[in-house]
Amino acid sequence: MHQLRKPYLLYLGASKDKMFAKTAFGLRDWCRADCLGEWSLPSAEVSTGLERLSPAEAGKRGAGSIVIGIAPVGGALPPEWIPDLEAAIAAGLDVVSGMHTRLTSFPTLVAAAAKHGVRLLDVRHADKRFPAGNGRKRTGMRVATVGTDCALGKKYTALTIARALNARGVKATFRATGQTGIMIAGEGVAIDAVVSDFVAGAAEQLSPDNDADHWDVIEGQGALFHPAYAAVTLGLLHGSQPDALVLCHDPSRAFIEDFPGFPIPDLRVAIRRYEEAAHLTNAKAKVVAVSINSSSMDDAAWKAYADSTSKHVGLPVYDPMRGGADGLATAVLTVG
Amino acid sequence: MHQLRKPYLLYLGASKDKMFAKTAFGLRDWCRADCLGEWSLPSAEVSTGLERLSPAEAGKRGAGSIVIGIAPVGGALPPEWIPDLEAAIAAGLDVVSGMHTRLTSFPTLVAAAAKHGVRLLDVRHADKRFPAGNGRKRTGMRVATVGTDCALGKKYTALTIARALNARGVKATFRATGQTGIMIAGEGVAIDAVVSDFVAGAAEQLSPDNDADHWDVIEGQGALFHPAYAAVTLGLLHGSQPDALVLCHDPSRAFIEDFPGFPIPDLRVAIRRYEEAAHLTNAKAKVVAVSINSSSMDDAAWKAYADSTSKHVGLPVYDPMRGGADGLATAVLTVG
Repeated sequence: MHQLRKPYLLYLGASKDKMFAKTAFGLRDWCRADCLGEWSLPSAEVSTGLERLSPAEAGKRGAGSIVIGIAPVGGALPPEWIPDLEAAIAAGLDVVSGMHTRLTSFPTLVAAAAKHGVRLLDVRHADKRFPAGNGRKRTGMRVATVGTDCALGKKYTALTIARALNARGVKATFRATGQTGIMIAGEGVAIDAVVSDFVAGAAEQLSPDNDADHWDVIEGQGALFHPAYAAVTLGLLHGSQPDALVLCHDPSRAFIEDFPGFPIPDLRVAIRRYEEAAHLTNAKAKVVAVSINSSSMDDAAWKAYADSTSKHVGLPVYDPMRGGADGLATAVLTVG
Repeated sequence: MHQLRKPYLLYLGASKDKMFAKTAFGLRDWCRADCLGEWSLPSAEVSTGLERLSPAEAGKRGAGSIVIGIAPVGGALPPEWIPDLEAAIAAGLDVVSGMHTRLTSFPTLVAAAAKHGVRLLDVRHADKRFPAGNGRKRTGMRVATVGTDCALGKKYTALTIARALNARGVKATFRATGQTGIMIAGEGVAIDAVVSDFVAGAAEQLSPDNDADHWDVIEGQGALFHPAYAAVTLGLLHGSQPDALVLCHDPSRAFIEDFPGFPIPDLRVAIRRYEEAAHLTNAKAKVVAVSINSSSMDDAAWKAYADSTSKHVGLPVYDPMRGGADGLATAVLTVG
């Protein structure tokens, strides 16, 4: 389980395109109070709008970590970042990365981190071994977001539900299972990086026993209908033992992204399959709402779609980007 | 993907109990032609009955590997084995182990292996990275064994089916997914040791494109109804794209072993759930037979059970230990 040190200095490198700086913008939007400022190379053309702070200055103001907020083209760490990262290390900051290439594969960073007693944290990778799952029912309430595909709003939906629950005074904690979520939460497990034998066990550790009226809001991964990643989805679902499920869907997709032979199932089928799978570890598990990514629709189309879909599945249908967060929170609490 | 060098010298250490030498006996029974002989410490009380050969003598006779055929109590490698393993390494043999503790964690073995140019092969662990699954339909036919629980005969059933198919002249290859199976086959993937994101991809590589009339017989792992290991099962199933499934079951178990809160489902439910899951990557996937571990029954009880179960599920029911291998092979070929 990763445990990060906040507050953060967001690092933007030489970023020229907001599209590749999604992590930095996500952190600014979801944990702004934890972001002291940003830093970048002189050639950068992207900014989050946060105060510009050198690594040394950020260290003086108490920053815990410098977070790599951009995805470098090609996936490798650009050499021109190294001086900035070394300056952050010298200022006592941990370095946090969600890249495939591990920070620990750069000997100069490893040596600098050892010298200054800070950590190199590769949150896309699992940082420890986990036990196998034990299936023991844990105390507290849990809601998990699940999806008809990858990358269509499971993290966003979970974050909005956690925030909406907190806003109405309900104890709730977002539980992160992917790299950006881990950075936002400051802790979590990169569940798809866990050895398959231990996926359910890692998910069990992610939402431990809690107060009876506390909600863990667990970020889903992958999809049961995904030919490459369904194993991740199922192990996470079993270990999470959710009481409530929120099904996330993007109506503009007819097929699993990048897998044209694999159609997205009808939402009623998806609901049945997710409930069936979840019942193994929680016989009461129930899909309580559908969260739609309706970015492809205008207001009229969205209203018509939401109405017909709600009738079709017999559940409330919201888009958290169109003010649906509170409705999702209400739906979750119906199983409380 | 592990690729082992046969023939084998089976190593029994100081074994006093056949129960802990299951690997050695499995190799003797399933690939006897690949077993040159056995070796053990003077205090050993267990023998496979194969010719006793020192590592040096085995090397002279062309042995490719010494295989650790016993599970040491406590899981750690006993220091008294080291001289025998070093002798085998000096004689040019690879060392093959299915233990949790990696051979590569012993510096003296690593140094000896480097000096003599042989390999230390930990077949319980994955030896390489795999790509994510791509879902592309492969040529050739595939049958997978699946189960209502772990450790009830999925490997045994797959081995008997492959042997029975070969015996009637059908091209068939046993595809191993666990350590003992890998030793028997001489190759395979320890699928539960693969990072969850890549389980389906590893399974895809295990049974590559083949002749249209060739059968891969894939060793199943875990169970869809297992609170710890269902992720392994599902990823393996999706990557395997089986045309036929054989459901393995032990009627003496009411609950998942070591998980008393988790009942074994009715066989009709299990069949439906496995077919439903398998249809994602092969719409024609069909359970064709049930393979029963009936070791808890006498002949009369077995006959009554097989009859009633066959009626209940509408499929042929066999125990490969009671002469059912040929019936299973016939059932598999009905989908050819």
